[in-house]
Amino acid sequence: MPAEFQNFDIKNERAAVAGRVAALRGELKKRNLDGLLVPRADRQQNEYVPASEERLAWLTGFTGSAGFAIVTADKAALFVDGRYTTQVRDQTDTKIFDIQHLVEAPPEQWLEANIKAGGVIGYDPWLHTADQAEKVAKACESAGASLKAVMDNPIDTLWRERPAPPAGLAVPHNIKFAGESAADKIKRVRAELAKSKAGALLVTDPQAVAWTFNIRGSDLPHVPLVLANALVPSEGRPALYIESRKLDNAVRRALEEVADVRTPDDLARDLDTLKGKTVRIDRASAADALTRAMTDTGAKVVRGADPIAIMKAIKNHAEIAGSRAAHKRDGMAMVQFLAWFDREAPGGKLTEIDAVERLEGFRRETGKLKDVSFPTIAGSGPNGAIVHYRVTRDTNRIIGSGELFLIDSGAQYQDGTTDITRTVAVGAPSDEMRDRFTRVLKGHIAIATAIFPESTTGAQLDPLARVALWQAGLDYDHGTGHGVGSYLSVHEGPARISKLGTAPLRRGMILSNEPGYYKAGRYGIRTENLVLVIAEAEPPGAEKPLNAFETLTLAPIDRRLIDARMLSGKERAWLDSYHGRVMEEIGPLVDKSAQKWLEAVTRPLATGYLSTDK
Amino acid sequence: MPAEFQNFDIKNERAAVAGRVAALRGELKKRNLDGLLVPRADRQQNEYVPASEERLAWLTGFTGSAGFAIVTADKAALFVDGRYTTQVRDQTDTKIFDIQHLVEAPPEQWLEANIKAGGVIGYDPWLHTADQAEKVAKACESAGASLKAVMDNPIDTLWRERPAPPAGLAVPHNIKFAGESAADKIKRVRAELAKSKAGALLVTDPQAVAWTFNIRGSDLPHVPLVLANALVPSEGRPALYIESRKLDNAVRRALEEVADVRTPDDLARDLDTLKGKTVRIDRASAADALTRAMTDTGAKVVRGADPIAIMKAIKNHAEIAGSRAAHKRDGMAMVQFLAWFDREAPGGKLTEIDAVERLEGFRRETGKLKDVSFPTIAGSGPNGAIVHYRVTRDTNRIIGSGELFLIDSGAQYQDGTTDITRTVAVGAPSDEMRDRFTRVLKGHIAIATAIFPESTTGAQLDPLARVALWQAGLDYDHGTGHGVGSYLSVHEGPARISKLGTAPLRRGMILSNEPGYYKAGRYGIRTENLVLVIAEAEPPGAEKPLNAFETLTLAPIDRRLIDARMLSGKERAWLDSYHGRVMEEIGPLVDKSAQKWLEAVTRPLATGYLSTDK
Repeated sequence: MPAEFQNFDIKNERAAVAGRVAALRGELKKRNLDGLLVPRADRQQNEYVPASEERLAWLTGFTGSAGFAIVTADKAALFVDGRYTTQVRDQTDTKIFDIQHLVEAPPEQWLEANIKAGGVIGYDPWLHTADQAEKVAKACESAGASLKAVMDNPIDTLWRERPAPPAGLAVPHNIKFAGESAADKIKRVRAELAKSKAGALLVTDPQAVAWTFNIRGSDLPHVPLVLANALVPSEGRPALYIESRKLDNAVRRALEEVADVRTPDDLARDLDTLKGKTVRIDRASAADALTRAMTDTGAKVVRGADPIAIMKAIKNHAEIAGSRAAHKRDGMAMVQFLAWFDREAPGGKLTEIDAVERLEGFRRETGKLKDVSFPTIAGSGPNGAIVHYRVTRDTNRIIGSGELFLIDSGAQYQDGTTDITRTVAVGAPSDEMRDRFTRVLKGHIAIATAIFPESTTGAQLDPLARVALWQAGLDYDHGTGHGVGSYLSVHEGPARISKLGTAPLRRGMILSNEPGYYKAGRYGIRTENLVLVIAEAEPPGAEKPLNAFETLTLAPIDRRLIDARMLSGKERAWLDSYHGRVMEEIGPLVDKSAQKWLEAVTRPLATGYLSTDK
Repeated sequence: MPAEFQNFDIKNERAAVAGRVAALRGELKKRNLDGLLVPRADRQQNEYVPASEERLAWLTGFTGSAGFAIVTADKAALFVDGRYTTQVRDQTDTKIFDIQHLVEAPPEQWLEANIKAGGVIGYDPWLHTADQAEKVAKACESAGASLKAVMDNPIDTLWRERPAPPAGLAVPHNIKFAGESAADKIKRVRAELAKSKAGALLVTDPQAVAWTFNIRGSDLPHVPLVLANALVPSEGRPALYIESRKLDNAVRRALEEVADVRTPDDLARDLDTLKGKTVRIDRASAADALTRAMTDTGAKVVRGADPIAIMKAIKNHAEIAGSRAAHKRDGMAMVQFLAWFDREAPGGKLTEIDAVERLEGFRRETGKLKDVSFPTIAGSGPNGAIVHYRVTRDTNRIIGSGELFLIDSGAQYQDGTTDITRTVAVGAPSDEMRDRFTRVLKGHIAIATAIFPESTTGAQLDPLARVALWQAGLDYDHGTGHGVGSYLSVHEGPARISKLGTAPLRRGMILSNEPGYYKAGRYGIRTENLVLVIAEAEPPGAEKPLNAFETLTLAPIDRRLIDARMLSGKERAWLDSYHGRVMEEIGPLVDKSAQKWLEAVTRPLATGYLSTDK
């Protein structure tokens, strides 16, 4: 049963890089440009971009999810972050591209040091936000050069086999899943606009468009979005800008009840009507081209956080009920998978790809799977230590005995998006592995059981997940949790549990709880459940409304990897009660053999679990 | 034995406010100004300002430590923060001044809404930083008005009884306390300059000047500073700008070994020599007047964090040894005070001022006290719940039975600055008080025993101090800790343990550890020790250098307020071991009666401490 929603082949295009860069240089010369910026971005700053927007991959061969290139007449630099330092050298031609660290030596710095005074550097204003454009413009100025907006991207002239842009049909997101009508949502968006006295809101994040208008689509991998923009004036009808071919009559009629449905080309014209008005835009997704168009027309553009983000992040009753149902369904698939894995892995023949395919299979068997919510991370042994590992035919390996296997995956169901990581032992784990796993678990439980006042931010909770690792001189180099959408993106703002999580955690938000530990070249550990922010009963004398988390994800945590002596009574109680819930809710849904397996692996710790007792 | 370094009289000048504002309006009219900004600030943005700079207090009657006024022809607003909402109404004339919240409704907002288009608002560029001036200028522009720099402050023309500026003598800070010569410090500052390729550093924070040149002074209350500026070029001799009358020959000669000693008036001239150079300035303390002067002369001014702050914050061996000695001495005074208090308070006659005077007396008896490091906060009963309470003759009250008494105080000794808070019970505390005190103590111990990787910030540790309070629906509305200087300011950057503490905690930094709980109208609790960041032994397999805290402060924590059942074994062990150390180090230094008292109050918790057993 091969995977339908993910593939393991990455074509290596390194050999083509030199020719493409040479062609680009020719094109730049024709246009009197001394250089070009090539971000890995589409027009709406999506995390996953359509194939037609993979200009960076076409030019450089590099297929990672974040990157940036600069090509001048005699230099070329490719910027990637710490996740991709190995991959980039495998994929690009390092004789052509100088590899730089995207964060530590960012493009602005390179521009300041490398471009010539008087030079003109081109950029595509559709692929950068205004903030980004200003940053590079400043760097160019500082080097005595200038930055020039180029509306027709030079790469598109050269890229002959460029895929067609996506044309997925928009589909309505049923009110029974959405829980609130588009009309009511628009009312709330307007109320927010009124508060800030703005004349209009330009909605450029497709997730915000999808949420507001209760539509979904299939323009991007793994995220059920339709590429569209919207303009919500403080008075009068909103307008939705979407390609006509993406709308069937029923959807069009439904949308027309709440908005004018217009084409993407109409947007530029409609921006002209904003003269003199204050227009709020989302600084993280609005293209510089749009910001410029509005400024040129005489609108006062206020860049800020997308006001829809917070409304979208706070799930309503229907979305919460949907998520609970989705997690029950997903838990069923996970339990079947884990039982299968536990049976098969000791045979010494399973590969990482086998595991990914089988897990996707179990999810498809639910009959409700729309997509995986991201390409499964399935890392055995040393591959587990690569935080954003993606298995390919080249890296695929047999999962050996004595190894840990880390599998991080998720599903898109109409009623909810899931994201779960389990780390399981194959054969006997070492004492060190059990020590590390237990410390990560202590961090996971610290978040799962946290009680905190209503205004608490994710940054304040993040350290609680690390204390047990710190005590051993260990840590993990990623956040503890991210927001999760409701049949939307598996990564959703504004809240997150991390050093950078300055947004307060509000009731109804769904976040991941995923501390980890990675021993380079040896193994990786991560235990991830999704959690829902709920009200906590206030003890007598409490002065502040309190919140806590309800764990949504339902799948056993490998007890063979737990050193129960390291857990406090409260921690043991949490694990046993969680396992009790998993057995109670998922047990009845799986077949007899998986049920028997589940019963064994969810027994209370206190009874003295041994790896032989099942 | 009255206090020498603090007084309890605050003259109420409310009756004079109307006349002074009227006079100011006359003066503004003469100068064709439509308004004036009056910050509570001196030329170097000191926390404590000289009496000669108390323009805000003169104009408004308000004596709080933070505030801002705006006076126009027909309006006047006074901005204070949450600490001062009651005090300000007592001190100013609210018929003249409209009271605004400094943070929630800041001056910029008021300007935008209240000043007339075409108006010209004056500000004294010596009393604002460039950042501050830009913020208000933007607000003025946004209202169609303009902001104008006024070099001779209109208030100074009117303020007849204005005190003379301070003229304290500069004194050398002995190398045995400083631990590093001025020459070596200047070398390090230069190395830092070289890294950023800047041509010079303008040093405008008097704390930075004092640290770099190993001088102290007496220009300000409670902080042994001399008001001076310095200019450190990347090459050539630094210059120190200081009034001649503040230097005796010996000090002058010592300073001249490392710098040109010049007068404050020379500074403006010397700035002219910076044309074409990149000059780094401290954005938090450099006056807008200086920033403008440099920009006018053609220097490239780079505003940033003061690079000296981090050097100063990391204490060297001599400073650490000094701090330990200072804390032993201060612990002796505190133990004598607490023993005295425990004996006297039950008599029912002690007032808050009695306690402040007696504590200062015990500190003076050490023969080493230079000043208190801030006015003692001594709040009994409801006064304890006022976080920044300062006792005056008006608010003074007898400390009653069944009350808590919170006393937060500190000393300036040449070898170190101290800051300690203890909360003690008078008579029998309620169960609620013991519950709250124990939760605060759990937070205090969580910080005292924290183990964390080297790059950890104060923001990451802050929540650990709150978890036990959160669980009861409680919290405190201030940070957990601030940096502390070495015979310098008791509040020192850049590190702090708070939501805003983004600076990593580095070995050698001294910070306070002071969680609290405040029940409005009833009582306040705070337990504060100073802690030193030290290296923690790395357990086998550790991957990161680890740090921890060494507690410097030595004084008992009131065990009558501890509910030992709420403490974990580890927490009890910390308290007992801390008390053992206090007895061992302080016991031999105090008289027989205090020693006997100390022995009783530092007995291990495990023996079952009862309020009757001493």
